[in-house]
Amino acid sequence: MQKVDIDIEAFRRDMDAVSTFGATPDGGVCRPTATDADGAARDWFCRRLREEGMQISVDQLGCIFGVLPLAGADAPLVLTGSHLDSQPTGGRYDGAYGVVAGLHAALAVARAIKSSSAQPKCNVGVVNWTNEEGSRFAPSTMGSAVFAGAIEAQAALAAQDEKGETLAAALAKIGYAGNDSAPLKLAAYVEAHIEQGPVLEREQRTIGVVDGNWGTAKFIVEFTGRAAHTGPTPMHERRDALLAAARLVLAVRAESDATAGALLSSVGRIEVHPNSTNVVAERARVYVEFRDIDQARLDAACRSFAATVATIAQNGIRAVVTQTTDRRVADFDAGLRELIEAVAHEADISSMRLRTVAGHDAVSLATRFKSAMIFVPSANGISHNAEEFTASEDLEAGARVLAGVLAHLVRN
Amino acid sequence: MQKVDIDIEAFRRDMDAVSTFGATPDGGVCRPTATDADGAARDWFCRRLREEGMQISVDQLGCIFGVLPLAGADAPLVLTGSHLDSQPTGGRYDGAYGVVAGLHAALAVARAIKSSSAQPKCNVGVVNWTNEEGSRFAPSTMGSAVFAGAIEAQAALAAQDEKGETLAAALAKIGYAGNDSAPLKLAAYVEAHIEQGPVLEREQRTIGVVDGNWGTAKFIVEFTGRAAHTGPTPMHERRDALLAAARLVLAVRAESDATAGALLSSVGRIEVHPNSTNVVAERARVYVEFRDIDQARLDAACRSFAATVATIAQNGIRAVVTQTTDRRVADFDAGLRELIEAVAHEADISSMRLRTVAGHDAVSLATRFKSAMIFVPSANGISHNAEEFTASEDLEAGARVLAGVLAHLVRN
Repeated sequence: MQKVDIDIEAFRRDMDAVSTFGATPDGGVCRPTATDADGAARDWFCRRLREEGMQISVDQLGCIFGVLPLAGADAPLVLTGSHLDSQPTGGRYDGAYGVVAGLHAALAVARAIKSSSAQPKCNVGVVNWTNEEGSRFAPSTMGSAVFAGAIEAQAALAAQDEKGETLAAALAKIGYAGNDSAPLKLAAYVEAHIEQGPVLEREQRTIGVVDGNWGTAKFIVEFTGRAAHTGPTPMHERRDALLAAARLVLAVRAESDATAGALLSSVGRIEVHPNSTNVVAERARVYVEFRDIDQARLDAACRSFAATVATIAQNGIRAVVTQTTDRRVADFDAGLRELIEAVAHEADISSMRLRTVAGHDAVSLATRFKSAMIFVPSANGISHNAEEFTASEDLEAGARVLAGVLAHLVRN
Repeated sequence: MQKVDIDIEAFRRDMDAVSTFGATPDGGVCRPTATDADGAARDWFCRRLREEGMQISVDQLGCIFGVLPLAGADAPLVLTGSHLDSQPTGGRYDGAYGVVAGLHAALAVARAIKSSSAQPKCNVGVVNWTNEEGSRFAPSTMGSAVFAGAIEAQAALAAQDEKGETLAAALAKIGYAGNDSAPLKLAAYVEAHIEQGPVLEREQRTIGVVDGNWGTAKFIVEFTGRAAHTGPTPMHERRDALLAAARLVLAVRAESDATAGALLSSVGRIEVHPNSTNVVAERARVYVEFRDIDQARLDAACRSFAATVATIAQNGIRAVVTQTTDRRVADFDAGLRELIEAVAHEADISSMRLRTVAGHDAVSLATRFKSAMIFVPSANGISHNAEEFTASEDLEAGARVLAGVLAHLVRN
């Protein structure tokens, strides 16, 4: 097999470059979807794609595809990539790594093809998916979910941020309300990503071959009580939506405690109206999530949670529950997993199998396409935090394995 | 005694006029301190003061004084008034009533003096205090507290809203960063206000003669944990500031429950960072308040609360507690209370004694000046809500009693 070499210097330069967009003083990034910082990162990405002679298309969700037509316009596409958006307290690696590693893996594949006589069967491309994080617009993995046909483009574009701005309007503002058709003839999608958990570091392995994903259920619970003065209003007449929300936060935690922490649960977001010291809260919106590797245990927690909401919503409090995510436990493509393992083994890079707890664009893609993921270690398992860190040698090993996998897929 | 007559038609017109500033579709008002809506209400108030020939001064906190110099520039001032700012979910009457009733009571006093031969001993004036509500800038009753010397003007002006704008900057924007000296030679301060509680309605009395105020203690508790991904981060490694905040909300409620609701407690406001679905909360700020008619029971609750915060702030959560209000149980001036009672009795308007649970500008004033309050009924005790309502005949009876009290004070 022709040697597939990442241009390590260029890869490092691009990792440094992308980390400047939305950079925060603590060394992290704040680059929520379709903000100015996200727009600047996208502009940089498009400039890099043009410099490398890639064909750029931007679909209606603002996802940016860069393609090298190695095998002709009608050939299927081997796609890699990830996302440039971040959480408000994001680190440098979550998403951006997969985009930059994907770009350089694709370029390495093209160089290898060019210097060989073999006729490639596929084109190769890299994508920046819109709104993987879901922090400004819900749900998460939005661009990839629309691409995979799991949600309607119009519904996704109508999602509003806290200030009532739609994703459609926000994308138009930064110049990424595209109308190109997305390249749907996919041979495979392989995404490199930091693990965001402690397993690889603990087990001292460089590459995580992701077997599949945990199940995830997310809900928004909106409690409605009645605004009242916190002074003269007698306690028994108060219909306090924030008190109901606090009860729910503890109940959500209790679901995890009941499984000794095997089921993961969290409330990371809450919105209170009018949120004024002297006013009994009229409304409180609580964003709940449960994750489990065991689908049956996850389903049981969701049933228990629904019963808890009903119990809290008594004494004049109204509750409306909306499920925003129902990601079932699922496996990635078996052939791709074996290929990743084989490429790592051949390159003498240690690897292990694991499952992703977090959602990823590759998980969205897997519902319709052959899809897989390559993880690299996260120091102390920390993510969604400026302290997020992955060592350069791990980043580069992941990019090399990704390039080897893409090269194999393009040729065969 | 010369008859002191409110111009009822003009009073009604002015109540209608002031209700248009920051009017909300549900019939309430949203007029937080130093917003455009507050600025418009202030402009209207100054126009009305000018139309009535009153001398206007605006102090450095933006408090607006309108004075009728009945007894000469050096005579002491009998002052009335209240506040034009509102909660985000405010009703039409809270504050605005006391300003409009105060204006018309002062005018009625001036007419009565003019048509009599008696020489008044005092001037009469009406004030709009800045930031009574404390919802945009903390603490509440800010303008009157600075006037009474309880807090420093510079500290008050440096208070910031959620977006980091200072009160000084916000006042400058709406044109009310004044530099007139406030009229500190007060003979007395009497404020009319809606009760905001259910007592007068239940007891079928028109006038509440306010004996004094409940004690109130307010705190801001800031929990700091660590931002982390809500997916792969193991439960035992999470340092969840929002979970700590939820525990505190329930503990604050439990302090009241332990007194069978005699102690009032509330958390009406919470701020979470980064407040994103997929991120374990790094920080949560909780705004806590306790109110009690019994100072000893209030003090005990505050001690118990401090112990609870210390208990919650374990397992890697840090807590910083700041007390923002320590309003002790206190009485209004005994002579003024008797005067209000006598004036109501003489006018054949029913009255009763009660205590205010809520803070008011008159409570701030009482720490330094002879001060008292007149309450009128609130339908169903509802306040800080668009449904806030007081019947016209009650509003007008309150204004009449206020005018009678002011007339007595100006003459004697």
